[in-house]
Amino acid sequence: MKKACIISVGNELLAGLTVNTNASYLSRELMAMGIPAVSCYTVGDRIDSISRVLSQAAQQADIILITGGLGPTDDDLTRQALARFLQVELEFSEELLSRISDFFKRRDLKMSEKNKVQAYIPAGARAIANNVGTAPGIMAELNDKIFICLPGVPEEMTQMFARSVSPRLKQAGGGQVVLSRKLNCFGTGESVIAEKLGNSMQRNRNPLINCTVSGGVITLHIVATAADRAIAEDMIEKDSQQLRALLGDIVYGRDEQTLAEVIGAKLRKLRKSLAVAESCTGGLIGKLLTDVPGSSDYFKCGWITYSNEVKVRELGVDGALIEKHGSVSKEVAIAMAEGVLARADTDFAIAVTGIAGPGGGTEQKPVGLVYIAVTGPGWKDIQRYIFSHSRGHIRYRTALTALNMLRLKL
Amino acid sequence: MKKACIISVGNELLAGLTVNTNASYLSRELMAMGIPAVSCYTVGDRIDSISRVLSQAAQQADIILITGGLGPTDDDLTRQALARFLQVELEFSEELLSRISDFFKRRDLKMSEKNKVQAYIPAGARAIANNVGTAPGIMAELNDKIFICLPGVPEEMTQMFARSVSPRLKQAGGGQVVLSRKLNCFGTGESVIAEKLGNSMQRNRNPLINCTVSGGVITLHIVATAADRAIAEDMIEKDSQQLRALLGDIVYGRDEQTLAEVIGAKLRKLRKSLAVAESCTGGLIGKLLTDVPGSSDYFKCGWITYSNEVKVRELGVDGALIEKHGSVSKEVAIAMAEGVLARADTDFAIAVTGIAGPGGGTEQKPVGLVYIAVTGPGWKDIQRYIFSHSRGHIRYRTALTALNMLRLKL
Repeated sequence: MKKACIISVGNELLAGLTVNTNASYLSRELMAMGIPAVSCYTVGDRIDSISRVLSQAAQQADIILITGGLGPTDDDLTRQALARFLQVELEFSEELLSRISDFFKRRDLKMSEKNKVQAYIPAGARAIANNVGTAPGIMAELNDKIFICLPGVPEEMTQMFARSVSPRLKQAGGGQVVLSRKLNCFGTGESVIAEKLGNSMQRNRNPLINCTVSGGVITLHIVATAADRAIAEDMIEKDSQQLRALLGDIVYGRDEQTLAEVIGAKLRKLRKSLAVAESCTGGLIGKLLTDVPGSSDYFKCGWITYSNEVKVRELGVDGALIEKHGSVSKEVAIAMAEGVLARADTDFAIAVTGIAGPGGGTEQKPVGLVYIAVTGPGWKDIQRYIFSHSRGHIRYRTALTALNMLRLKL
Repeated sequence: MKKACIISVGNELLAGLTVNTNASYLSRELMAMGIPAVSCYTVGDRIDSISRVLSQAAQQADIILITGGLGPTDDDLTRQALARFLQVELEFSEELLSRISDFFKRRDLKMSEKNKVQAYIPAGARAIANNVGTAPGIMAELNDKIFICLPGVPEEMTQMFARSVSPRLKQAGGGQVVLSRKLNCFGTGESVIAEKLGNSMQRNRNPLINCTVSGGVITLHIVATAADRAIAEDMIEKDSQQLRALLGDIVYGRDEQTLAEVIGAKLRKLRKSLAVAESCTGGLIGKLLTDVPGSSDYFKCGWITYSNEVKVRELGVDGALIEKHGSVSKEVAIAMAEGVLARADTDFAIAVTGIAGPGGGTEQKPVGLVYIAVTGPGWKDIQRYIFSHSRGHIRYRTALTALNMLRLKL
């Protein structure tokens, strides 16, 4: 089985100013193609440090992936370090320069002199196209080892990896296949899920089942190792069915599916439409819904009604209701949702009102108190929650919980 | 100046299932006490891998920090690896065992046999108390190098570092202080900034100036090393002023400040209000503005006008205008912004309309085409952009660019 080593280059990483998400992305992707990472190195923007870890990495691994240090500035030294390690010169490429200058032309921008350095690559290496930024990647081979340099900017790195690097490494991989699937869960805690799963989370099991948590979404990772793809897929499918049977509607989707995507697919299938009114989430629910390509098929509009005045004027909420119950109340949440249905003429409506904090809380209505109303043809669902932690966390949990309430009704 | 190396141990890190936040925490803390990390290594749960990187680390650094692999299970091997590297035996400590069993007693839990292994430490080393979990840390010295092992669980690690490790390292550090400040820039490319900065990004300069990019925001990190805090602060202040003078209004804020915060502070100071109308960003601009605590002081409301019908009905955009120019046009962006001002009665308005993709583009109006209108008392600013890459990227760049257009007018 081939092994990989990941090298992350950047002083900002060593200074702790940036969390290294590139290394975990690449580890995960490599694992999924049966090329486990045996180590990850982080080094600063210095030619000697980079070329030293290149030697160390080449002693342990067959595939060495380097991110960062390909930009146009003086602290970008990966090109030089790779050339030194390979004991070759940097060569200027007309073709690369014209691609880089095209990047600027298409955007009506002037190319800086500094960008010219990005047209140099080590002799004998190939460039990897970058459709997002100016820095081309580099792929080189030496003594049956493959060296791949990608930019440190995550959007550029991930796209280049998926488009150009992954197909090449799949050829190189060979041997055991490791496949994984995620099951995304919402609406309960990690310990409840662990209890429901019983001993299927044992460490020496194959498939291995791991659990991660982020923003209230609990993700179960089913990781199967097998001699070939078909066997691994069968193992995953069998476990996936078993976990879904144990967890019921707690599971909302798989892999990269979001709650908004799942709702969108159902609305499209039902040919139904949705509109929202947001107070404490300030646009976040609309943002999550419209993250999904083609969401204009079912998502019609939204109101960000951050002040009481706007709730009354735009959604027709009765001012007396706000006066009596306060804007963060069950009554106002329902009135907002009903106002949305009336104004937007959609099949479904979501409305939220709450106190995201850190200020604005009282003993009766603490920070984190949120009312969520979801309405549809002939029914309405209203829930009260008290979320905790930061403003960001409260807003995000509110948005996901609102989407989940609608999902359970569709 | 003393140097540090950070070693993270754990298969879950190499599988990409966990993002390594421990390394960035420790890097930041060490940097602040004048002991910069020169490299970080991540290795799996194997004695040979751990002891190999211990040797590599000891060649580069004076202080070696290891996290992970101190738990009670069979895959926790840091203890053994450190003993092998130090060429000593593991010794059983009665005192450690009684501390571990106390941990369980206080919680009315039965200690597992497995936990006994946590009472072993390399001969000659000292234990570091853990008040949160069962795994004691380890501190050892060899040839003037300090080796420190801490658990991988972030809550345990950070508490033990702050309580026991940090005071010891401050003695060892030897006086140098490293401080850093970020300057956040928007509205131009990395290479333009590099050109403007000239040779102030040289690698051997003090303060050192690093540059990172994320979602169009370019961050300059000014990192000063000095004999004491006051000198480092002076150096940073001087550089900061110099960079601001070179970059002008490209710099929008410092450290963790966002564009939305900077705008918010200005609006509050001017006692002015803002409302938005969003088409392609679908609520993202509202979300970013309301991420800021207290934003209700100046942010009044927003419309997510995802369909043409809603643009006409809610914002009073002339249907004939949409018919003639299309909904993604300069004319409609301006009409949306004017509609917002009229409806919301605020001082400023932002309106965006565009094609976020991946579908919906044509030759005349490609994916990424965006019109942004910003209006205020007696003026309007309208800009056309073509952003590239993913739907998410186009939407995020649109939102930040809109906020930046308003910032430059305030």
